Amino acid sequence: MPITTAEVEERIARGRSEFIAGFRRVLEGPSISAIPDHKKDIEETVRIAVELLRAAGAEVTVFETRGNPVVFGHVENKKGAPTVAVYNHLDVQPALKGRDGWLRDPFKFAEENGRFYARGASDDKGPAMTALWAARIARELGVPTNVELIWELEEEIGSPNFAEFLDKAKPVIQADSVVVSDTQWLAADRPVVSRGLRGLLGVLLRLRTAQKDAHSGAVGGAARNPITELCEIVANCVDARTGKINVPGFERTWSAPTREQVDDFVASGFSVASFKAAHGLQRMRTEEVREVTSRIWAMPTFEVHGIAGGYQDAGIKTIVPPWAEAKVSFRLVPGQDPGEVFTLFERYVRSLNADCEVIKEAGLAPYAADISLPQVKAAAEALAFAFGVRPVFTMEGGSIGAVVTMQKKLSLPIAFMGLSLPEDGYHGPDESFAWRQIEGGVKAFVKYFELLA
Amino acid sequence: MPITTAEVEERIARGRSEFIAGFRRVLEGPSISAIPDHKKDIEETVRIAVELLRAAGAEVTVFETRGNPVVFGHVENKKGAPTVAVYNHLDVQPALKGRDGWLRDPFKFAEENGRFYARGASDDKGPAMTALWAARIARELGVPTNVELIWELEEEIGSPNFAEFLDKAKPVIQADSVVVSDTQWLAADRPVVSRGLRGLLGVLLRLRTAQKDAHSGAVGGAARNPITELCEIVANCVDARTGKINVPGFERTWSAPTREQVDDFVASGFSVASFKAAHGLQRMRTEEVREVTSRIWAMPTFEVHGIAGGYQDAGIKTIVPPWAEAKVSFRLVPGQDPGEVFTLFERYVRSLNADCEVIKEAGLAPYAADISLPQVKAAAEALAFAFGVRPVFTMEGGSIGAVVTMQKKLSLPIAFMGLSLPEDGYHGPDESFAWRQIEGGVKAFVKYFELLA
Repeated sequence: MPITTAEVEERIARGRSEFIAGFRRVLEGPSISAIPDHKKDIEETVRIAVELLRAAGAEVTVFETRGNPVVFGHVENKKGAPTVAVYNHLDVQPALKGRDGWLRDPFKFAEENGRFYARGASDDKGPAMTALWAARIARELGVPTNVELIWELEEEIGSPNFAEFLDKAKPVIQADSVVVSDTQWLAADRPVVSRGLRGLLGVLLRLRTAQKDAHSGAVGGAARNPITELCEIVANCVDARTGKINVPGFERTWSAPTREQVDDFVASGFSVASFKAAHGLQRMRTEEVREVTSRIWAMPTFEVHGIAGGYQDAGIKTIVPPWAEAKVSFRLVPGQDPGEVFTLFERYVRSLNADCEVIKEAGLAPYAADISLPQVKAAAEALAFAFGVRPVFTMEGGSIGAVVTMQKKLSLPIAFMGLSLPEDGYHGPDESFAWRQIEGGVKAFVKYFELLA
Repeated sequence: MPITTAEVEERIARGRSEFIAGFRRVLEGPSISAIPDHKKDIEETVRIAVELLRAAGAEVTVFETRGNPVVFGHVENKKGAPTVAVYNHLDVQPALKGRDGWLRDPFKFAEENGRFYARGASDDKGPAMTALWAARIARELGVPTNVELIWELEEEIGSPNFAEFLDKAKPVIQADSVVVSDTQWLAADRPVVSRGLRGLLGVLLRLRTAQKDAHSGAVGGAARNPITELCEIVANCVDARTGKINVPGFERTWSAPTREQVDDFVASGFSVASFKAAHGLQRMRTEEVREVTSRIWAMPTFEVHGIAGGYQDAGIKTIVPPWAEAKVSFRLVPGQDPGEVFTLFERYVRSLNADCEVIKEAGLAPYAADISLPQVKAAAEALAFAFGVRPVFTMEGGSIGAVVTMQKKLSLPIAFMGLSLPEDGYHGPDESFAWRQIEGGVKAFVKYFELLA
């Protein structure tokens, strides 16, 4: 007899305070993978993760890599039954109170109006905890599916050592399919099953022209100015108004989405107004729905994430600075190769400015899902069961390096079952995750495990 | 009987430790005018200045303005004798240990190998203290010239309230000429009497396109990116490689230096190699001496002093940031008007990007000196007396707002007698001032006072 929402809800209600206590512990650790100073916090998060997995009845192995470890938990519900691996990550994006727009302390857990606030609440500690809770309830309800939990700690830096983990863990992994829960819905009433991911090529541009600050009156005009030179490089690479990428050869590496694909994007019910509001965008490059959906789901981008150089404090300090730096990335669409794009980009930047260092920071291949898989259909059914709305199939604009690595190394069917909402503040300030998504998410996962059985 | 170097040297030797004690006090106060948080430090520097002036026998008045006060000291040596006002400033450029390239604590006084280190040592607390010491020795030696010391505390922000000071102080000021000591030599063996100053227009460019950081995977392509837009604005305003300013109408506001002027620049003995080494420039736009001297002395510039936006820490944070900001300035040559240039610049930036704020931070007119004045000839003779080398007459690439204001408000002859060296690190890290310049500077000022008598 299939499980009912009532019996899952009853278990959720019973376990709520224990869940919140664990969620708080895991959220209050600043497990920022991009900043080496947080290495100790990553280690502490690993310890917490091991305890939480064990408390849920999992057998736990911590796989060390050249970088951060991967925590692997196996919940055995029935010997010989199907096994599904749920992928999540416990590392988070950088966040600092009073900077990056954060009004809250990013590593102080807070519950307010049905939302849980802290860096990583939605990306991706909330979905990870939700999947874990579902594994526990599935066992209590006798769902005959074994669940493995793969918790990475380097997703936000492009999963550079995830292949090493898979090589080590392969003999231990029993899963015959993988479900990834690190993607976003279209809106609170529009669940999504992702049909693919954009790839990412992250690059640091660094230009040094002098040893130290110099007085702009004394040297200005004759000295090189690394900021103006860096601005020129950026301006040559991209049309700031349209976003069109002007790196020679780049156009040949991708194709625009077809009319049919864009028709599908529009049919998903994507709302430009909700999108704009959820992300706090005051103005956009375009508000035409075909254009917007194509740009975020099916076209490559060039973005500058940060730029620095010279004087940053109040007023003006009349110097010619010695260096400038920009952190940039390309999002890539299926068919594009990060290595090839890096070669084109590096060659072009060096042709514009021979002194500019072009340092590759991350390279993640794009991913096209096979949505005809029974696991993908099951994910759609599970979301419909839990939230009462049939999900739509859309592309994910973001990138998850581990997905492509799992596809290559494990050769298992992969499905996406994300739980995050656009208003959660992925990578942004005052990130949060809604209780409604946790509750529904547990139901969806329990149902998914049942459907796989 | 004219004074001799021996008798001045004897007085200098006798007063050395008292001088150093006072110099230390005034240097250890972080009197940074650009950063409002340092208001209290400015006030403390005023108190120290008053004590030091009184200890030297000056009658002191502190003139309050809407901004920082101006400290005015009058040393009466002989009633009815000529009076000269020496202009210096006691505010300093921003500096922070571990940032901006500072290896030392910028506000911890240190003496090493004949140099005194701290922010402001050379610009302009050292020259101020040197002039004060000279006024004292001149009195002891019976030089019949009265000396007034004008110590400003807003020079580094463009002297916005110096006119207000002059209006208030005019009835008190007895000076019949002014000497300004806030300029640099060509090299340690090449004293300079400046024949003019470049002007300055400081502007803040600020562009906001969203409320908060957004995930570049979720919004990238459709969202506007304020950094790429700001880079495009900068790249349109200036040719980064040549420094050529491309603001429409700007070319009509100035004329290139004549062949004869440039011949004079070369005849000054300017050495590109020393210049490059003194300022730590690894590469320059050009190393041709006619070009370099023209660019730093007789051509306008457009520089970006600082740029900020998005993520600045380790690694990459894949966001589309909500805002970006650049601190820029134009140096202007005689004939150009900061107000007119601002109008051209603002119009152009707004035509490139209607959302970019264009905020005027400082406007200082350029200044052309009259080098036929007897005071200017006296300054040259005094420097030759003190340092044993005849000074050259060159332009100063920097700007001193107070000079133009004094010219307008006081209508007195103005001469320049700077003491700073290119290697002192004006506006740069680990700023210092050489004992040799102090010792020679005292001699030069005493001689100058005598020549005016």
